[in-house]
Amino acid sequence: MTAPVNFDSLEVGFDVPALPGMDATDIQTPCLVLDMDALERNIRKMGDYARAHGMRHRVHGKMHKSVDVAKLQEKLGGAVGVCCQKVSEAEVFARGGIKDILVSNQVRDAAKIDRLARLPKFGARTIVCVDDITNVADLSAAAVKHGTEIEVLIEIDCGAGRCGVTTTDVVIEIAKAVEAAPNLRFTGIQAYQGAMQHLDSFEARKEKLDIAIAQVKHAVDGLAAQGITCDLVSGGGTGSYYFESNSGVYNELQCGSYAFMDADYGRILDANGQRIDQGEWENAFFILTQVMSHAKADKAIVDAGLKAQSVDSGLPVVFGRKDVEYVKCSDEHGVVSDPDGVLKVGDKLRLVPGHCDPTANVHDWYVGVRGDKVEVLWPVSARGKAF
Amino acid sequence: MTAPVNFDSLEVGFDVPALPGMDATDIQTPCLVLDMDALERNIRKMGDYARAHGMRHRVHGKMHKSVDVAKLQEKLGGAVGVCCQKVSEAEVFARGGIKDILVSNQVRDAAKIDRLARLPKFGARTIVCVDDITNVADLSAAAVKHGTEIEVLIEIDCGAGRCGVTTTDVVIEIAKAVEAAPNLRFTGIQAYQGAMQHLDSFEARKEKLDIAIAQVKHAVDGLAAQGITCDLVSGGGTGSYYFESNSGVYNELQCGSYAFMDADYGRILDANGQRIDQGEWENAFFILTQVMSHAKADKAIVDAGLKAQSVDSGLPVVFGRKDVEYVKCSDEHGVVSDPDGVLKVGDKLRLVPGHCDPTANVHDWYVGVRGDKVEVLWPVSARGKAF
Repeated sequence: MTAPVNFDSLEVGFDVPALPGMDATDIQTPCLVLDMDALERNIRKMGDYARAHGMRHRVHGKMHKSVDVAKLQEKLGGAVGVCCQKVSEAEVFARGGIKDILVSNQVRDAAKIDRLARLPKFGARTIVCVDDITNVADLSAAAVKHGTEIEVLIEIDCGAGRCGVTTTDVVIEIAKAVEAAPNLRFTGIQAYQGAMQHLDSFEARKEKLDIAIAQVKHAVDGLAAQGITCDLVSGGGTGSYYFESNSGVYNELQCGSYAFMDADYGRILDANGQRIDQGEWENAFFILTQVMSHAKADKAIVDAGLKAQSVDSGLPVVFGRKDVEYVKCSDEHGVVSDPDGVLKVGDKLRLVPGHCDPTANVHDWYVGVRGDKVEVLWPVSARGKAF
Repeated sequence: MTAPVNFDSLEVGFDVPALPGMDATDIQTPCLVLDMDALERNIRKMGDYARAHGMRHRVHGKMHKSVDVAKLQEKLGGAVGVCCQKVSEAEVFARGGIKDILVSNQVRDAAKIDRLARLPKFGARTIVCVDDITNVADLSAAAVKHGTEIEVLIEIDCGAGRCGVTTTDVVIEIAKAVEAAPNLRFTGIQAYQGAMQHLDSFEARKEKLDIAIAQVKHAVDGLAAQGITCDLVSGGGTGSYYFESNSGVYNELQCGSYAFMDADYGRILDANGQRIDQGEWENAFFILTQVMSHAKADKAIVDAGLKAQSVDSGLPVVFGRKDVEYVKCSDEHGVVSDPDGVLKVGDKLRLVPGHCDPTANVHDWYVGVRGDKVEVLWPVSARGKAF
């Protein structure tokens, strides 16, 4: 999927939902649609913000899993590269030409460590997270074997409750082990507060981030006291990047969802109490769906169900409509409440999915639309790359 | 994906999780694993049941989306063919050699109707559902255009609350229109009670099915009174097939999940009050996952999150373990509660997903395991075929 797409070989309706140049009305449903104008505005806006605040922006490629979107983020948003969560995703980005890649996760399986150590051969700076000192020797041995260098961030659990160490002492202990290990380089700290990103209240998010920042600062200062410098202190998401940017501790952001937006993120509030999808960011990412049955007067049945999205963060929202509501989701069906019977079989609706990341991962293609034309067809390059 | 798989071109850990002949311990995680012995026992058991009850069994291919599994169901379980929900799925099954295909759903978009009308050219008997008389002329025109025959089941909504008509009068009206339409053939009734399949209590399910059966019988009798015969009365799922089989009305089953089982179906109770995954069916379908972090003493972090499954019907269950529990799921992480600290980094667990259908649809491959060896690697042939 990283080679250029040969459009001649693709059959619309079987292989792909659309082809470039098509009228947008002919797109086959259900599929993912990107509003190219909105996407570009989101990307430029975050790029401008990061630049104005002296922050590197390493865009989260695990959100979109697309080499094409990542390259647009580099071009229009000044992104320095990507982060992603899996070695197989990193391979897709490296083969696709991304030159600075952080696997913002632990890599422990021997076969995966071996693959990680080969990544620099694609020309990509390769960084990985560590939260366990016993991982250091394995990473080092693989890098030595392949004659490459792997950079290491120590992951601090600053509230996500998943991977990551919790004390500065352990950070220092692992950092020293990394510094002493052949073909590894200690590069800094990974600290992403994942659990607070979706809290509605700006103040509630700030409270959590203040704690996280203090924790990270303690570790950075502790390392400095031992003569160990952090080149990168990386973290921050769409619900928090302003806190990290003004922390004086972080120097790299890892935002992902800002580019696409989704219904769950859209509901959180900015400092002025406004939903972030009503000003800060635009919805650029949709599931296009079509009414396929209206046998009951007050219910339209649409063709996007559980196999066209993830509902882990709630049902999708019908974009730009107050008169109809997506109320139920089964494998291949969505039930849209239509109390006034305004929808007809064949009508198309744009759905804002509850959660963009796992929704993108269900689809093979992005249909990029500008005005009434299909402009691009982009593969979800790392779809299914979960290894 | 319907051509034979060229194993030489596939790189383990990037393209595929395993290759045939491999030791099961070398499978890359996360991925889907089929216990081939359990799968074969489930398939034979349902086949035997259908045969003993004089029922045709049209297996639900939308559950597994696999030509290989469907062919195993034909071979070992006497399946007459498949049903599926999308034209693009039907195309995969037809190209893969399945000869009797029901699209158990409405097909309304002009491009999709055109594709449906071409399906018989692959050598497949092609049946579709209709719940709106205005659909009849469009189906007929496309079949005439391609010189093919499309068979039609009238879909009755007998409780799923999605597509389907609700009165016998409308069934008769549409059936007459189908009989009068060139290149269409009226074949019978589709009536799947989807909403009751997951009710825990056998009696509660029976109560719902009794209502559905009465509704279907009313329609079949009403048609007969008009001289219209139903060749097929099709429906029934893993939570209800014994009701349809003993109804005297239905003559075709459409079970899907029985072959794989999942955590949500597993919890429902049989007539004796026993969970159906503790006797009636075996768990044959797993997400294989691996511990990648254990930085906190009481929590193991595994590598299967939202991109390795659908959690619409609840979190996965760790198979065969009472000492650990999968308690939280984010995009690429699962948190497994490990109060006694029995898990180590690198340990592998088999997860029974909450819902098999949308979980299969996230993955590209099934790794079929027998004993300690990988026996087969099967593509999820119709993965992502949502059109």
